[in-house]
Amino acid sequence: MKEQQNSKHIVIVGAGFGGIRVVRALSEADVQITLIDKHNYHLFQPLLYQVSTATLGIDDIAYPVRAMIKGQKNVLFRMGEVTNIDFERKSVMLDTAEIDYDYLVLATGGVTNYFGIETVEKNGFGMKTLDESVTIRNHILHQFELASYETDMDKRRALLTFIVVGGGPTGVESAGALSELIYLVMEEEYHNLNFKEVRIVLVEASDKVLASMPEELREVTVETLISKHVEVRLCVQVTDYDGERLILKGGEIIPTRTVIWAAGIKAAPILDKLNIKQDQARRAIVNEYLQLPDHQDVFVIGDSAHFEYNERPLPMIAPVAIQQADVTAKNIKNLIKEKPLEKFAYKDVGSMATIGRNAAVVHMGRIKLKGFFAWLIWSLVHILRLIDFRNRFVVFMKWVWEYVFYDRLVRIITRQ
Amino acid sequence: MKEQQNSKHIVIVGAGFGGIRVVRALSEADVQITLIDKHNYHLFQPLLYQVSTATLGIDDIAYPVRAMIKGQKNVLFRMGEVTNIDFERKSVMLDTAEIDYDYLVLATGGVTNYFGIETVEKNGFGMKTLDESVTIRNHILHQFELASYETDMDKRRALLTFIVVGGGPTGVESAGALSELIYLVMEEEYHNLNFKEVRIVLVEASDKVLASMPEELREVTVETLISKHVEVRLCVQVTDYDGERLILKGGEIIPTRTVIWAAGIKAAPILDKLNIKQDQARRAIVNEYLQLPDHQDVFVIGDSAHFEYNERPLPMIAPVAIQQADVTAKNIKNLIKEKPLEKFAYKDVGSMATIGRNAAVVHMGRIKLKGFFAWLIWSLVHILRLIDFRNRFVVFMKWVWEYVFYDRLVRIITRQ
Repeated sequence: MKEQQNSKHIVIVGAGFGGIRVVRALSEADVQITLIDKHNYHLFQPLLYQVSTATLGIDDIAYPVRAMIKGQKNVLFRMGEVTNIDFERKSVMLDTAEIDYDYLVLATGGVTNYFGIETVEKNGFGMKTLDESVTIRNHILHQFELASYETDMDKRRALLTFIVVGGGPTGVESAGALSELIYLVMEEEYHNLNFKEVRIVLVEASDKVLASMPEELREVTVETLISKHVEVRLCVQVTDYDGERLILKGGEIIPTRTVIWAAGIKAAPILDKLNIKQDQARRAIVNEYLQLPDHQDVFVIGDSAHFEYNERPLPMIAPVAIQQADVTAKNIKNLIKEKPLEKFAYKDVGSMATIGRNAAVVHMGRIKLKGFFAWLIWSLVHILRLIDFRNRFVVFMKWVWEYVFYDRLVRIITRQ
Repeated sequence: MKEQQNSKHIVIVGAGFGGIRVVRALSEADVQITLIDKHNYHLFQPLLYQVSTATLGIDDIAYPVRAMIKGQKNVLFRMGEVTNIDFERKSVMLDTAEIDYDYLVLATGGVTNYFGIETVEKNGFGMKTLDESVTIRNHILHQFELASYETDMDKRRALLTFIVVGGGPTGVESAGALSELIYLVMEEEYHNLNFKEVRIVLVEASDKVLASMPEELREVTVETLISKHVEVRLCVQVTDYDGERLILKGGEIIPTRTVIWAAGIKAAPILDKLNIKQDQARRAIVNEYLQLPDHQDVFVIGDSAHFEYNERPLPMIAPVAIQQADVTAKNIKNLIKEKPLEKFAYKDVGSMATIGRNAAVVHMGRIKLKGFFAWLIWSLVHILRLIDFRNRFVVFMKWVWEYVFYDRLVRIITRQ
């Protein structure tokens, strides 16, 4: 116990990819760790869209934090929401307590960015949390039940019109998975519905989907979406949505009950309270060691951090958080031993997106892949990244089931 | 289409064990069927307690109704809540429409019976629906998170006291599963909690648990529960519960935040509106053919029906509903063909309950089994009764996982 009293206390806020990685990288270190998250689970966010579209259940992509750390003796988990941080007193305030730190890691992740369009925030659906994904699943399934006995054609078409806003990976993957849910699964089951009345529209404000991909892969992505009956609308901005009518810039109106907003992410709002430098996406500007410039005992990583690479801030994706976690764990150990710090250097791992069965695009360095082989790689990478063996196996079985039987079994409407 | 216009229209209310069975038994009949349920899924209620105690996810025990009937051409599914029935006009009223029938099957199931104790209904937890089970899971897990940093010992003990009311199969199975969740899984993960402060109490108003079982099996059930640190309190009645203090008859007070009420079921409240004869559990009194005596085009089956066998009403369990569904489907065909009806005769299938790992009791006719072999039979029967192959396989894998690794992976707190 004496040894423990002398060891430094590291507080890590956020049990996402970054936070969990720091915890693990410090497992052998002579430190005491408190890991804080407002949820009791780690969430595999890249597959949230598969919960929204009824392929996976919540326990396939959410894993209890305590189960992940139970073998590691130097960490305590605390479920709670951080309400503020006092950098002078070196203290993290929760709704229920205050926790002092020697070193602090903020890995608080991102939330949906509606860019100030309040009506969309109110009437549309974000897809950054487990609850939001379940809400989208319930909502989509419910629209089909309502449409199945709606006799007014205009109302029925509005019920069957699904808008996905945002042409990034999340938007593309959601639109593709939604198309397959509707045309490969549900069309078999709603005998009295005319599926020609269904519309799926992917709306993107810029002139590109998957903007970071090479042109060749962007083109195949659009072609694949169109072949799946997804209307791809580029250079189109959303201005307003009252829950029934989506208004586009220029005045076009689309009657719809479903607007899924995948057009942007910003840093979690806790950063706004800290009186620190932030970028437009509310991320904290960090130095080359990922510290807050004015508070060098505080590291910020992942979606919360603004770090420039090739003159642009790094994207808000898991590999960035994981790489930053590794160097942060090293630098905490360096600080304790009074050694010089290591600069963060990003290794670009490329990007990938799946559009549906046998269809994905993968871009890694000079490698550009599309179609079935890209889809196999996407599936393999995501299975391997799912953290524990059992989730990996169950998810794999569910994917095989869906692939072979064209079925989706999580089509359960909860919480009406 | 001409043939269809002449065929009779059968309306079936409820997609539980009974309703689904009637639909399937009429798959070859020249009838049009409308199946109505307020949920879009069929629920495997006997395993609800495994959702509450974090072994299974919702999609393991809930299955989309439309997926179950998609191969059957003579049935339409309608999601909606029945608000009333007009026996004279032969019409079922939904919140959104009226549907006329030639023959009606009421398979509306049961709800929790609080026997008029309003404070328990308000502050305790029922466990008859999927949402209720998820609510219990969230609540139990949350109590441990709260307890992990509660410094007041009395408050901590109240957070860690779990009361299950009702010594029937649901209560016994819940108490056993809760014990294993707490002592085999969570004790490994809450290093700063003293698990001697945990109390699990099974409260039963009569002098017996599993009242329909032979004495020998009842005794082994109590012994097994006690070995799992469950306090078994017989001849104890609950009188009041304000959310913090459970009051027992005689005045004893148990401070607790968790009262799971598994002490009774009554028929779904729709029957109360129909001006028919009901028993104490609000079930419709039916004749020997399972018809309402005054409305012979209306059949009532399963938990909704009061049918006497050996001078006692049949229990509210799945095998009764399934057997009654079979004879009802036959009798609808008999009515259409103007043939004499078949009387319902119950074949007793016995009963079983599992108390935990390697521990169950099985009673079938003269067969009485306990321990590991009974547990194997229980597992086998429940796996076989889970309706589709994929659920069966995933549930089997999850049980094996839990058995081998002493883990429960659905410990996800949703909807805070």
